[in-house]
Amino acid sequence: MRAVVLAAGEGRRLRSVHPGPKPLFPLLGLPLIVRTFCTLREAGITDIVVVLGHRGDEVREALGDGARWGVRLTYAECPDWEKGNGASVLAAAPHVAGERSWLLLMADHLVTPELVKRVAECAPPEGGVAVGVDFNPGRVPDLDEATKVQTDRLASYAETAAAAAPAANAVATARGVRPAVVAIGKDLTAFDGVDCGVFHATGGLLDALRECAAEGRHTLSDGVRRLAAAGRALACDIGDARWCDVDDPAAVRYARRMLLEQLPTPRDGLVSRHLNRKLSVPISAFLARFAVTPNQLSFATFLLTALAAGLFAVGAFAAGGVVAQVASVLDGVDGEIARLKFLRSRFGELFDAILDRIGDGLLLAGLTYGTYAATESRWALLFGALALIGSPLSMMIKDRYRAMTGDLYRPDVHDGWVRYLLANRDGRMFVLFVGGVFELGLATLAVLALTSLTQAVVRLIRIRKFL
Amino acid sequence: MRAVVLAAGEGRRLRSVHPGPKPLFPLLGLPLIVRTFCTLREAGITDIVVVLGHRGDEVREALGDGARWGVRLTYAECPDWEKGNGASVLAAAPHVAGERSWLLLMADHLVTPELVKRVAECAPPEGGVAVGVDFNPGRVPDLDEATKVQTDRLASYAETAAAAAPAANAVATARGVRPAVVAIGKDLTAFDGVDCGVFHATGGLLDALRECAAEGRHTLSDGVRRLAAAGRALACDIGDARWCDVDDPAAVRYARRMLLEQLPTPRDGLVSRHLNRKLSVPISAFLARFAVTPNQLSFATFLLTALAAGLFAVGAFAAGGVVAQVASVLDGVDGEIARLKFLRSRFGELFDAILDRIGDGLLLAGLTYGTYAATESRWALLFGALALIGSPLSMMIKDRYRAMTGDLYRPDVHDGWVRYLLANRDGRMFVLFVGGVFELGLATLAVLALTSLTQAVVRLIRIRKFL
Repeated sequence: MRAVVLAAGEGRRLRSVHPGPKPLFPLLGLPLIVRTFCTLREAGITDIVVVLGHRGDEVREALGDGARWGVRLTYAECPDWEKGNGASVLAAAPHVAGERSWLLLMADHLVTPELVKRVAECAPPEGGVAVGVDFNPGRVPDLDEATKVQTDRLASYAETAAAAAPAANAVATARGVRPAVVAIGKDLTAFDGVDCGVFHATGGLLDALRECAAEGRHTLSDGVRRLAAAGRALACDIGDARWCDVDDPAAVRYARRMLLEQLPTPRDGLVSRHLNRKLSVPISAFLARFAVTPNQLSFATFLLTALAAGLFAVGAFAAGGVVAQVASVLDGVDGEIARLKFLRSRFGELFDAILDRIGDGLLLAGLTYGTYAATESRWALLFGALALIGSPLSMMIKDRYRAMTGDLYRPDVHDGWVRYLLANRDGRMFVLFVGGVFELGLATLAVLALTSLTQAVVRLIRIRKFL
Repeated sequence: MRAVVLAAGEGRRLRSVHPGPKPLFPLLGLPLIVRTFCTLREAGITDIVVVLGHRGDEVREALGDGARWGVRLTYAECPDWEKGNGASVLAAAPHVAGERSWLLLMADHLVTPELVKRVAECAPPEGGVAVGVDFNPGRVPDLDEATKVQTDRLASYAETAAAAAPAANAVATARGVRPAVVAIGKDLTAFDGVDCGVFHATGGLLDALRECAAEGRHTLSDGVRRLAAAGRALACDIGDARWCDVDDPAAVRYARRMLLEQLPTPRDGLVSRHLNRKLSVPISAFLARFAVTPNQLSFATFLLTALAAGLFAVGAFAAGGVVAQVASVLDGVDGEIARLKFLRSRFGELFDAILDRIGDGLLLAGLTYGTYAATESRWALLFGALALIGSPLSMMIKDRYRAMTGDLYRPDVHDGWVRYLLANRDGRMFVLFVGGVFELGLATLAVLALTSLTQAVVRLIRIRKFL
C-alpha cells in the first residue's frame, strides 16, 4: 500500500519556536515528517509520496530519497498549496492513479503505528473514503481548532434516546455496521468524533476534490463532505490509539508528553517504575536532540558500571553504590532513545542484555573482593559466588520463557509476590546502592545471593502452569 | 483426523524374546504400540481406534483409555484376526464410518512423527487409498519379508530407458503427479518401493476388503491390490523418514539402533559429539527400561555436579575433575531419555537449563576457592570471577537469539571458528576435567574466563548478520 503525506502547508503558528519549514520541526530529535515516515514503516508501509508546497525545496533537500529511514520517497509539487490542503491532495493524484486505495496523512500530525494499521485495515467504500475518527473528543487537547466529525451514530443515538432503551441501542450501533460520516468541519456544534488526520482513500476522493475545486472550495474537508453527502464517507474508529496535531507551541508540549509517556513498559520492575523511569525519561528527552545512538549509550552505561565495580573493589563502597545507581538509571536511557527515535534493533537488544550481564558480574565481583579485602571473611567469598551464580538467572528464565512460548515474560503477570524480592536488575542495582551507601558489603552480598536464588526457585515452581 | 492401529496379530517370531502380546513388547522402555500412540500424538493425532485380536484382553487392560500418553483410545474387537490383517481393518469399520479419510498403522511398525505427517498430508484418491512407500528399498533391513510395491514410476522409467533421455524423464516423473501403485505383495520381483505400513485410507478400502473377503482373500495387500487395479491406490513418498517393521529379534536390534541414532543433535558441541554422546547414549539405552524421569535425572546430575564443586573446593582437584566430566556425560541422559520415551516438556527443558547454570557456577566457585586456598594467589579470585561472569553468556546469547528470531541457535551454522574454543557447556566441563586431573587450577580458571568472554564478544560480532 502507498501513502501520501501532505507537507505543503506553512505552519505559521509554529514559527515562533521553529524558523525552518514546519515538516522539519524537530520533535525529540526527529523532524515531524520523519516521525510520520518511521511510523508508516513500523506499520509496514514504505512507499511514500510527499506533497511539497511552502519551502518545498528545503524539505526535499533535507529528506532525500528516504533510504536513511527505510522508506522510498517520491515527491509531488503543489504550486497552489495556498488554496487549501485539497489542492495538495490533488497534486499527488498522478502518483496514486494505479492504486485501488491508499493512505493519506498529514506531515504535522503525530500518530502511532497502531493507528495507521487500524485505518489501513478499514476498507473505504467503493469510490469513497474511510476517515480515521477519534470518538473520544474529550481527550483532544485543542478541540476548538480540531476538525469535528458527526456520524450517523450520533443521529441514531439521539433518536433512540427519545425511545425507551438508549444505552442498549447505542452499544448495538457501536458494535454493528461502521458509522457513516454525516458532517465534517471545524465549526460543527453537534459532533461525536474528531478527524485525526489519517484517511484511507480511493480515486473517488480525488474526483470529489476536483468537483469542489471547480466550485472554488479547496479543503480536504470539502471533498470529504461531498462524499459524505453521497453516503461514501465512513468513519474508522481509531479506538484509544493516540495522536496529536502539532500546530502550535501548546500542541508541541502535548506531543512531547505523549511520546514520553509511552516509554515505561508494563514489564518494568518496581524500582524502575517508581524511581528510575522518573529520572531516565527526562534524561532521554534531553539526549534525544543529539546524534548519540542507543548502542553508544549502552556502552557508556557499561563503562560507568565497570567504574562502580572498581570503586567497590578498592573499598569505596558509598561511591560505588551511588555510581551503580546512576548507571542503573542510565540503563533505561538506551532503550528509551531507541524507542523515541525509531532506532530499535535486535542487535541493540542483545548487545544491551550482554553488557548488562557482564556489568552485573563485575559489580558483584568488585563488591566481593572489596568486602573480602576489608573483612578477610570467607563468607564474603561464599555469598559473592552465590550472588554471581544467582544474578543472571532472572534474565535467563525470562529469555528461555520467551524462547519457548514466543511471549514476553511479564513479571507483573507471572511473578506474583516474587517481584517484591527486588531480584530483577533494577532491584539488584538498588540493593547495591543502599548496601554501598551504608557500607554493608557482606549483608548486601548475602541479600543478593538469597533473593536471586529464591526468585529463581519460586519462578521455576510458579512458571510450570504457564508453560 | 482419526487413526486405526492394528494390534490383532500374534507376532510369533518375537516370542523367543518376549512372552507377552506383541503390541506390548517393550522397546527402550516403551511398549511398541505406545510408541505408535506417542508418535501419532506428536503428529497431532490423538483419536485412535485399536483393533484387538490375539490376547486382546491383556492388551486392552495394559493400555486403558490412553490418557497416560495424551491420546483417546477406543477398541474394536476382531475375533477372526487369524484370517489376515484385512479382517482386522474391517473390524474397525464402524469406528471410521463417519470419516472422510483416516490413517491406518500397524502396532508393530516403528515410525516417526514426520512419516505420519507426510502420509496424513497425502490425500487419498476418491474412494481409494494412499500407501506410504519407501522408495529406497536398499535400506530396508529385512527386504525378503517386506511388502514390495511397484508403481507406474518403474514402468515409465523402463519405457523411457529404452528411449533417449531416461534420467530427465525419470526426474520429471518423480516431480510430477504422484505415482500410482501398480502391484503390491511380498513376492514381487519388479518393484521400486516398499510399503512402510502407514496408509491414508477412505471407505473405498473397506469396500475393497469386503469384496476380497467374499472371495476368500483376507490380507490388507489384497484390498490395496484391488484398488490398484481400479487406479485408486496412490503411493505417498515418505522421503528419508525412517521406519522399521519390528517382527523378529534382528528387527528389534535394528529398531533400537534407529532410535538411538536419532539422539545426538546437530547443535551438539565438539566434546559432546565426539565423546559425551558415545557414552551417554548407551547409558540412556540402559536406563530407558526403568521408570526414572528426565527431571529426576537432571536433578541427580546436578547433585553430582555439586559434589564435584565440593571436591574442587577442598582441593581434591583430580577427583573433582573426573566427577565433573562424569556429570557432563550424564547431562545428556535426561534429554535423551525424554526424547526416547516421548517425555519432553518445556518445564523439563527450563529446569535442566537452570540447574546446569547453577551447577556451572558451583563448579567455578569451588575451583576458585580451592585454588585460592592452595595458592593464596589473588589471580585465582580474578580469573574465577571472570569465568563466573563469562560462563553463562554462552547459553544467554543462544536463548536470546532464539527468543528474538524464533529459530534455534545453531553453533555449527552461526559460530564459525568460535566453536573450537570449547566455550559451550560440554567444552567448559571438559576443560575442568583436564585442568582438574592435571591439578592446574589457576590455568583452568584463566582459560575458562578467556574462552567464554572471547566467545561472547566474537558471537556478538558475528551474530549481527543473522539478526
